[in-house]
Amino acid sequence: MSLLRGRFDGPAGEDMTRFSSSLGEDLRLVDEDVEGSIAHATMLGEVGILDPQEVAELHRGLTEVLRQIRDGEWRPGSDLEDVHMAVESRLAQQVGTVAFKLHTARSRNDQVATDVRLWMKRALVALEAALAELLDALLDRVERDGRILMPGYTHLQRGQPILLGHHLLAHAWAVMRDRERLRDAARRVDRSPLGACAMAGTAHPIDRRRTAELLGFSGIVENAMDAVAARDHLQEVVAACAIALTHLSRMAEELVLWSSAEFAFVRLAEAYTTGSSIMPQKRNPDAPELVRGKAARVIGDLVALLTLVKGLPLAYNRDLQEDKAPLFDAVDTTRDAVRIMAGVWRTLTFDAERFESALRGDLSLATELADHLAAGGVPFREAHEIVARLVRWCERHGRKLDDLTPAEAAAFHPGLSTALGDALDPRAAAERRTSLGGTAWCEIERQLALFRGADAP
Amino acid sequence: MSLLRGRFDGPAGEDMTRFSSSLGEDLRLVDEDVEGSIAHATMLGEVGILDPQEVAELHRGLTEVLRQIRDGEWRPGSDLEDVHMAVESRLAQQVGTVAFKLHTARSRNDQVATDVRLWMKRALVALEAALAELLDALLDRVERDGRILMPGYTHLQRGQPILLGHHLLAHAWAVMRDRERLRDAARRVDRSPLGACAMAGTAHPIDRRRTAELLGFSGIVENAMDAVAARDHLQEVVAACAIALTHLSRMAEELVLWSSAEFAFVRLAEAYTTGSSIMPQKRNPDAPELVRGKAARVIGDLVALLTLVKGLPLAYNRDLQEDKAPLFDAVDTTRDAVRIMAGVWRTLTFDAERFESALRGDLSLATELADHLAAGGVPFREAHEIVARLVRWCERHGRKLDDLTPAEAAAFHPGLSTALGDALDPRAAAERRTSLGGTAWCEIERQLALFRGADAP
Amino acid sequence: MSLLRGRFDGPAGEDMTRFSSSLGEDLRLVDEDVEGSIAHATMLGEVGILDPQEVAELHRGLTEVLRQIRDGEWRPGSDLEDVHMAVESRLAQQVGTVAFKLHTARSRNDQVATDVRLWMKRALVALEAALAELLDALLDRVERDGRILMPGYTHLQRGQPILLGHHLLAHAWAVMRDRERLRDAARRVDRSPLGACAMAGTAHPIDRRRTAELLGFSGIVENAMDAVAARDHLQEVVAACAIALTHLSRMAEELVLWSSAEFAFVRLAEAYTTGSSIMPQKRNPDAPELVRGKAARVIGDLVALLTLVKGLPLAYNRDLQEDKAPLFDAVDTTRDAVRIMAGVWRTLTFDAERFESALRGDLSLATELADHLAAGGVPFREAHEIVARLVRWCERHGRKLDDLTPAEAAAFHPGLSTALGDALDPRAAAERRTSLGGTAWCEIERQLALFRGADAP
Amino acid sequence: MSLLRGRFDGPAGEDMTRFSSSLGEDLRLVDEDVEGSIAHATMLGEVGILDPQEVAELHRGLTEVLRQIRDGEWRPGSDLEDVHMAVESRLAQQVGTVAFKLHTARSRNDQVATDVRLWMKRALVALEAALAELLDALLDRVERDGRILMPGYTHLQRGQPILLGHHLLAHAWAVMRDRERLRDAARRVDRSPLGACAMAGTAHPIDRRRTAELLGFSGIVENAMDAVAARDHLQEVVAACAIALTHLSRMAEELVLWSSAEFAFVRLAEAYTTGSSIMPQKRNPDAPELVRGKAARVIGDLVALLTLVKGLPLAYNRDLQEDKAPLFDAVDTTRDAVRIMAGVWRTLTFDAERFESALRGDLSLATELADHLAAGGVPFREAHEIVARLVRWCERHGRKLDDLTPAEAAAFHPGLSTALGDALDPRAAAERRTSLGGTAWCEIERQLALFRGADAP
Repeated sequence: MSLLRGRFDGPAGEDMTRFSSSLGEDLRLVDEDVEGSIAHATMLGEVGILDPQEVAELHRGLTEVLRQIRDGEWRPGSDLEDVHMAVESRLAQQVGTVAFKLHTARSRNDQVATDVRLWMKRALVALEAALAELLDALLDRVERDGRILMPGYTHLQRGQPILLGHHLLAHAWAVMRDRERLRDAARRVDRSPLGACAMAGTAHPIDRRRTAELLGFSGIVENAMDAVAARDHLQEVVAACAIALTHLSRMAEELVLWSSAEFAFVRLAEAYTTGSSIMPQKRNPDAPELVRGKAARVIGDLVALLTLVKGLPLAYNRDLQEDKAPLFDAVDTTRDAVRIMAGVWRTLTFDAERFESALRGDLSLATELADHLAAGGVPFREAHEIVARLVRWCERHGRKLDDLTPAEAAAFHPGLSTALGDALDPRAAAERRTSLGGTAWCEIERQLALFRGADAP
Repeated sequence: MSLLRGRFDGPAGEDMTRFSSSLGEDLRLVDEDVEGSIAHATMLGEVGILDPQEVAELHRGLTEVLRQIRDGEWRPGSDLEDVHMAVESRLAQQVGTVAFKLHTARSRNDQVATDVRLWMKRALVALEAALAELLDALLDRVERDGRILMPGYTHLQRGQPILLGHHLLAHAWAVMRDRERLRDAARRVDRSPLGACAMAGTAHPIDRRRTAELLGFSGIVENAMDAVAARDHLQEVVAACAIALTHLSRMAEELVLWSSAEFAFVRLAEAYTTGSSIMPQKRNPDAPELVRGKAARVIGDLVALLTLVKGLPLAYNRDLQEDKAPLFDAVDTTRDAVRIMAGVWRTLTFDAERFESALRGDLSLATELADHLAAGGVPFREAHEIVARLVRWCERHGRKLDDLTPAEAAAFHPGLSTALGDALDPRAAAERRTSLGGTAWCEIERQLALFRGADAP
Repeated sequence: MSLLRGRFDGPAGEDMTRFSSSLGEDLRLVDEDVEGSIAHATMLGEVGILDPQEVAELHRGLTEVLRQIRDGEWRPGSDLEDVHMAVESRLAQQVGTVAFKLHTARSRNDQVATDVRLWMKRALVALEAALAELLDALLDRVERDGRILMPGYTHLQRGQPILLGHHLLAHAWAVMRDRERLRDAARRVDRSPLGACAMAGTAHPIDRRRTAELLGFSGIVENAMDAVAARDHLQEVVAACAIALTHLSRMAEELVLWSSAEFAFVRLAEAYTTGSSIMPQKRNPDAPELVRGKAARVIGDLVALLTLVKGLPLAYNRDLQEDKAPLFDAVDTTRDAVRIMAGVWRTLTFDAERFESALRGDLSLATELADHLAAGGVPFREAHEIVARLVRWCERHGRKLDDLTPAEAAAFHPGLSTALGDALDPRAAAERRTSLGGTAWCEIERQLALFRGADAP
Repeated sequence: MSLLRGRFDGPAGEDMTRFSSSLGEDLRLVDEDVEGSIAHATMLGEVGILDPQEVAELHRGLTEVLRQIRDGEWRPGSDLEDVHMAVESRLAQQVGTVAFKLHTARSRNDQVATDVRLWMKRALVALEAALAELLDALLDRVERDGRILMPGYTHLQRGQPILLGHHLLAHAWAVMRDRERLRDAARRVDRSPLGACAMAGTAHPIDRRRTAELLGFSGIVENAMDAVAARDHLQEVVAACAIALTHLSRMAEELVLWSSAEFAFVRLAEAYTTGSSIMPQKRNPDAPELVRGKAARVIGDLVALLTLVKGLPLAYNRDLQEDKAPLFDAVDTTRDAVRIMAGVWRTLTFDAERFESALRGDLSLATELADHLAAGGVPFREAHEIVARLVRWCERHGRKLDDLTPAEAAAFHPGLSTALGDALDPRAAAERRTSLGGTAWCEIERQLALFRGADAP
């Protein structure tokens, strides 16, 4: 058979209708679409383009359509290309030809741009609430379990002993910045494109500031072509989501590690794990694993949105219809992942004893010993060499540092005989680090106060 | 209010069920899941793990479940975590506890890996058929319209005159490579993971080659851990899709350009455009614009799949559940876009006259003039300088090259007086380029024969 | 031959040194590294950890090292792993063992984090200056050429006539938002990590606020682990760069289109193009093409930075060394591209007449005609149908709208006989659109005033 | 001050020269460029376009230029735009004006396309050698250490006991597929574009098959426009690199985990780690961490290459100059990372005893116990429930399964009293899994034979 068989028989039209329909995504915007229309009608009445009777009819009809949608009485069908046409034809069924007057001084271009910005404003409020909840969960854990001793890791190697609260606050600050980033993005979202029409504005005496006000926008997009062509507000929000999910993926990785038999530092609540019928002790850390995976998904969404717009001339091009799927997916996924992580943190259990004894005399405390010698006047470099010899000796003989007798230690340097107490106590070592932002409990409390004192407008 | 309000009230369980459910994507795999189970039951009977009666009951039950799904009598509900559990519980309703024997020597890990590979095999067949159809559409256009004269562009500047067929064949070869790439990928997909169990194989005397044969795989994945952990076959297929869509996006860009009032070289069929009620002549090139946008989407899918797997230890991690959404989206989108482009090419109309006269005497033919002088013995560099002076003179006086009288031309060089005929005929210039792969019609015919002669197994 | 030949002979050590060295990238940070050390030494003296003599020697040595670097007398060699070690060993050559005291209460983790933030602060200032220059170039063009008439495009189809200034301002607003976005990011960059040490702070009585002040930071990173582990400030800046380059790519696409023989709307200055020795009129739009390509590069950088951090546990992991190449590349590329585009805009020439006559009577003015009828009382829908018939008639007879005689027009509707003047004048049509942000010149002037009045701190 | 200050003073020309120069990347291609020219000259002589004397001079000159480059006597300067011009002008210095005859029937478009393909062919050979070495290193480890017992992980939770060889072979198969994938890609690279000229071929009687043969290509790119416009061969190779690095990142993650104090399963050789002067036992797993990070870098390169080409019309556009940086970076990075990983595997040490005793009686062996009961006739579901009760009892009393006395076990089910031996021996459990691809040693040996028997052409 030649390679060139296989012509499709179906009518081109059907394929194309399915290919080009955006109704699946648009349905998310139906509330916003109707609200935008109500505001537009109000303004058209106020400037005298519609008479009061017409405005009243449109309001009645639009409110009814919205009610029907919310009550599930009516859903747009798939034969209609987009949600605007669907609402319009439904409106016409309710109020007759006055429905078509709603199009005066408006095009689908500024209409959909308005819908998306309204949706984003609300979605960002919900996302911010989720981030606040995650922050609260983290800070509650700090208050409850923040004094638990654990190794601080670099390269996944035990470095210095730290308090769990110090570690958790590092995550909290990252979440705090995610929140600020989304707020900054929200300011750029919060501009009304309504009245930009196709791209050039209109000769009708409309009042764009009035519709902006009615819809709760804090201002307008100043240029009509920019109003319909810009997509950077979507890209910025999705970039902030991707960064936030990267943060969540780091927490998630740690929770997966800490849940392993080898780390055994944490036990996730059942709701966030799956188990085994035969091994009741087994808990797969499904929630953090999924969250880690979601980061990949949202990075993909961001790439789609950036690549989509790259190289497109102004103003509207149909490619831009593809902006909604990654926007919705990224915002939904991020909000869900943030909420899940809040729940995970609230409900897990730390094994407070896991590292308390394990770190006693751990060779990672060698630095403390050298500091002790240095504080006693031994030059820093010489102190290092003395302790390195001691550590090698311990390793060769399978000893921990706090197994040593004063006599054994003194054989390396007299000053070491008095060092084995406090210097080798990992908790004392952590509590010594009182510099700003250090792991000492007083510093954890200082940061807690900063968080708890912050106002959320 | 402090920033730390907003604890969610809903039960963690519900959020998590929704967050972790893969049923939405898994539903695509229900056919494959049942077929995999039928093959597994057959093999279990053949090696004596199940008795003939049990096998018969399982076959009956599974066939019935499959029928119910295909007839729309039953769809898995959202309370079940995944499609495997859904099918199993439905099967138990049909045949009782023998349903649970189906799990012998199988885990969900190898089961889902098998489902996905079966799905991919079929999807790749459909994608290949779509690519064959696109190739056929392109080659038909070459045969029908391949002699139309047009400018060859570099930097979107007119370079040399070429035949449309030459240009279209450049696209056809790219599509041909996309097809080869997907076939190469298909070889790596075509291995059965069934029988790998959780990751370590089984002590049961199963016959993995037999289930592979029953399901139409050409071999097995040789290592059980690899069988459940590998995702490179998904990444490779999606990468091939992304590359194919990049090719489509280049065609699409050209169709958008050529549809503009400024190029005015092509008129797309109505089915693939949207128009304006008041401007019947206006045709927005929606189909190619959407195809161009879809390239971004699939590049995003690829990034998601690569980033997802990066840094995951073996074997299965729950993150991997996120592999299906980008796989399905990329393959579906690519197939649809390929089919749409085939339709676009089949149904558009070229304006055969658009460039025929526009290119006569175009300044871009200056190279031909220099070649003419060089062929007559003028050193190449000198010939270039003579013609450059001539071109500047034409530009200054607003003349085209074929406006020139022989006397005017001879003023620059005597040899030019005889050059104005054939050298300035763009069609003759194109037909002169008979080197292998050149734009001359004989070379287009040679390539057509290569395509039409190729076998598709 | 077996597949398993080819063991490499070279010593592992060399390969690994090359593989792991970051010196290539670090060299960019050498100024910042020395400045950070100077501030650290000052503070160590102020809190009594170093004595004044030691501080003076360190200052002298560091200043000398910096001078040697700036004068090109010394460059770190490739045998050293990173820039910090290189500077330190050079310093020791200058001042002896006091050099090693500089490490007190500092680790490489907080040192490099400080270097990168200092570098970013400066790079962002330069990037902002470049964006200001681009804005200025755009606004100058608006003032000079803003009244040129052109088609507004959607789907690359001619839509409504607009003024060039309207189009250019759409780009200007996008650039303005890019600038705001980078400023928002800069606030999050502007925190000093110095004093965080390895991740846990220090027991030394250091003053982190003092070094922050000395280095010009507006505050400190409050948590020591966050200080060394965070990379979201890099991701945010690179995301803002990617978005900005997406905007530039849209301008670039238009400049490529407008430079084509088909659009012929713009002529780029020679400096930003390449030509042909034989076709002096030919100008390949290299600068905008390269800018369009750079967008892809920076999107790649962003993906690298996001994927890099995904799934990494706290605090430092060696993977993070890979953060600098994409950061530097993205910021450099964006700044260069912005400056190039500023130059392109400043030096190009518009063909002011290109569309002035071409748009007269263009069928895209049909909407104006319908509006004219509607304003005269004809119901909107009926007006549309009348004009659609007229347009089809024109198309069939190859007529433009302003070829029509009043009698011909009146045959479709009496009201049309008086419509052919102003309604079909594309400039009048543009000037009618005086709604906020519309294309009328008065609105362009309003926006210019907004830009010119804005303060740049 | 207004925001609009800051016009740059430097001449546009210099900025643009730097911005548009590709010499930095092109230098990698200088060998290939000269070789391509030698082949081209040979062919021009053979078809009679150049006379033997000219060919001889060109050969002499090109060979000399190549020698000068290789001996470091001459490097192209940065004032020249690209490597082709640099070589050409150097050649002219050697042989005079005959140098310019080399351009006959060739343009920079097909020249650079040829250079890149030649470079890729060689780079792929080196990459394949590196992958062969990595495979060899893995298989050597399997032979040496493959019988070490370890937990097989899913969700990073201990699942079933497996042999290390089983785990390592899962990685080996993935590497094998990476190699196949690169070979498939290499076939599509291996076509000569030389002779395509600018995009339309030439009227000169050249012999493209001859230059292809001289350069070692196995065929030609059949269409001249495709020859200069295609970039899918780059995208495919970089995609294969990204997939391969994803595989390496999974190995790397495991090596990082296994190097931690908590897993303590592996000790990397010093050459691939960094240590601490004071803690000689500490080894940061730098090499695997860097490899994990490199995966992000190459994913970024792939995104750059895909996004770059998206939406570009045929044939050449200057954007495409940006293809070389990500290509070179991806191929170099992948080859280096593969070699480093080969060295890491060759030189590390496993702690063979780490899990041998730890897994004895581990609760994860509960499944084995249930299987034992089921084999003895207890219905599968009932067996599960019995063992689940036993496991809960053990957990509550802090017992391991092999602590149990037969009497204690028999209290749950009489059949358990005889189960505590072999069923709870993790090594025996692993060796029981003899299904194809299972973890039993016989299956590991079978796979080793498959690898060792494979031919590498």
